Amino acid sequence: MVEITLNDVLQAAERIQVHRTPVMTSDSINEFASKNRPVELFFKCELLQKTGSFKYRGASNAVQSISEQDAPKGVVCHSSGNHAQAVALAAKKRGIPCYAVMPKSVADIKKKAVIGYGAKLVECESLMSERVRIADELLKETGGTFVHPFNNPKVIAGQGTIALELLSQVEDLDAIVVPVGGGGMLTGCAVAAKSLNPNIKIFAAEPAAVDDCYQTFKTQQRSSNPVTATSVADGLLTNLGDIAYASIQKYVDDVFTVTEKEIIQATQFVWERLKQCIEPSAGVGVAVTLYNQEFQEKIKEHNIKRIGIILCGGNVDISKVVDLFQKYKD
Amino acid sequence: MVEITLNDVLQAAERIQVHRTPVMTSDSINEFASKNRPVELFFKCELLQKTGSFKYRGASNAVQSISEQDAPKGVVCHSSGNHAQAVALAAKKRGIPCYAVMPKSVADIKKKAVIGYGAKLVECESLMSERVRIADELLKETGGTFVHPFNNPKVIAGQGTIALELLSQVEDLDAIVVPVGGGGMLTGCAVAAKSLNPNIKIFAAEPAAVDDCYQTFKTQQRSSNPVTATSVADGLLTNLGDIAYASIQKYVDDVFTVTEKEIIQATQFVWERLKQCIEPSAGVGVAVTLYNQEFQEKIKEHNIKRIGIILCGGNVDISKVVDLFQKYKD
Repeated sequence: MVEITLNDVLQAAERIQVHRTPVMTSDSINEFASKNRPVELFFKCELLQKTGSFKYRGASNAVQSISEQDAPKGVVCHSSGNHAQAVALAAKKRGIPCYAVMPKSVADIKKKAVIGYGAKLVECESLMSERVRIADELLKETGGTFVHPFNNPKVIAGQGTIALELLSQVEDLDAIVVPVGGGGMLTGCAVAAKSLNPNIKIFAAEPAAVDDCYQTFKTQQRSSNPVTATSVADGLLTNLGDIAYASIQKYVDDVFTVTEKEIIQATQFVWERLKQCIEPSAGVGVAVTLYNQEFQEKIKEHNIKRIGIILCGGNVDISKVVDLFQKYKD
Repeated sequence: MVEITLNDVLQAAERIQVHRTPVMTSDSINEFASKNRPVELFFKCELLQKTGSFKYRGASNAVQSISEQDAPKGVVCHSSGNHAQAVALAAKKRGIPCYAVMPKSVADIKKKAVIGYGAKLVECESLMSERVRIADELLKETGGTFVHPFNNPKVIAGQGTIALELLSQVEDLDAIVVPVGGGGMLTGCAVAAKSLNPNIKIFAAEPAAVDDCYQTFKTQQRSSNPVTATSVADGLLTNLGDIAYASIQKYVDDVFTVTEKEIIQATQFVWERLKQCIEPSAGVGVAVTLYNQEFQEKIKEHNIKRIGIILCGGNVDISKVVDLFQKYKD
């Protein structure tokens, strides 16, 4: 089984060319979050990463790691958004071709961004099987390298650099809350953080509507979401990848879920109080921290005070998110 | 005539307890802004200042400067928003009473913020004469100190610390674009920046709908806005104060105006590309930089490449701003 190590993450940190994203704090948010017991929250602003999400870290590491021989044949990815933008920019920086398979249904603004980075956009039907089929065809045609959005050791190691940075920016963190979809960010951050500080707690945050990670963790039986299951946190719809599945029991301390309403209210809270236009997927960790009762008990039990929360991205259609704010208003 | 000096600003920097706000950059914004000639834009994020706007710098300096003898009597201010929040928090930090006169029409969220900082809220009719009358009554009753939002040397010196920080954060800035309403931020920043670097250009950015500063600067005759004049940039409706008026010809290199549509489009641009929820008043400097033709000619003439832009605040009703995005859509 593939195992990611701290060394992989340290190598990624050397290899990738990313923004060292800021960590934000807010007195008023801390006050709100400290109703039960005093906590300090540290928001790692990956929405300010290149291409607007953390995905650029993993994509950059994967693309930079391709051999000199294979690189000219280019890279292939499929994605409904952030990963395609990230791979497209990483390929552009390396000067190699990128083929991005994206569902027709994806917002125009995301397709334009991918094309803007010089990638060749290949549209397909929304079904995952179609995305995979077309990506496979492109791989055969071009001989290029496939960059999986999360089940790829280089991608996972790249995402782990978020935790490396966060631990260097904030002293004495007790815990990090990481949103989970395919689990690339979760695995990378868990490996990096636990290797540097075995006492730090790693908590996964997941929408209750697509809670395969929660079910898998709690039952110790691999679970998957119904194909039709969906969430406002559209970056987290996927099931846990194989690598993440293999490491979750080892590195993750607990998994917490939140409702759609909690996700949207937390997202609005961040827009209003932190002034950061996060996407709902980034609101999931905030929602766990602010609203989840089990989480409250857990941090009491472990005397957790200083909590890092990864705001993973900010690629949103503003008016659609504001419609959701209205829909989930009290 | 009152003259603000670099020394006043340096003293303010020692006295106030504010966030050193980050400076953000964006490759994609730079690319967009470089269509005519290459520029680099540096966004000074005062929306991330305590209380959500730059106003806290001036308020903190003014409140901290009150004598030990006068301080217990408290402070009085009138404001339709950001200034009242700033004075309220500054008074709370010093542990003295604050009386904030605010029009009834002001959004509840702003009133709640002021009360949340422990200030006594006194509501009044919207007319400026009413605000002044009630503030005067409170001053007589309490013997407190009045903190004017912009025509106050301590307030202006406090705002000047924005430029101090910006020049220490970004090397070789050629120009700073500063939104102008009453002119406190403009004067403070101009004094600080020009004292440190006489070659730097200071450009004021103003909504065309309330262009008293532009008219005053161009005609060298003091101008004022019609009482009914308004703008989406509601933090910039006021006329230039006396102190700003007296210093504008000395320190400001030029004034540029933008339309309501340009302000809103620039605001949306910042939300989408920089992921920062700025208020429309903060979009005015961005709009000048991106859309004003005279500004383009000016930076060409002076070979200006590295431009600082002050994003002055982020206190908005999100849904109202998004309605404006829709209204001013192409």
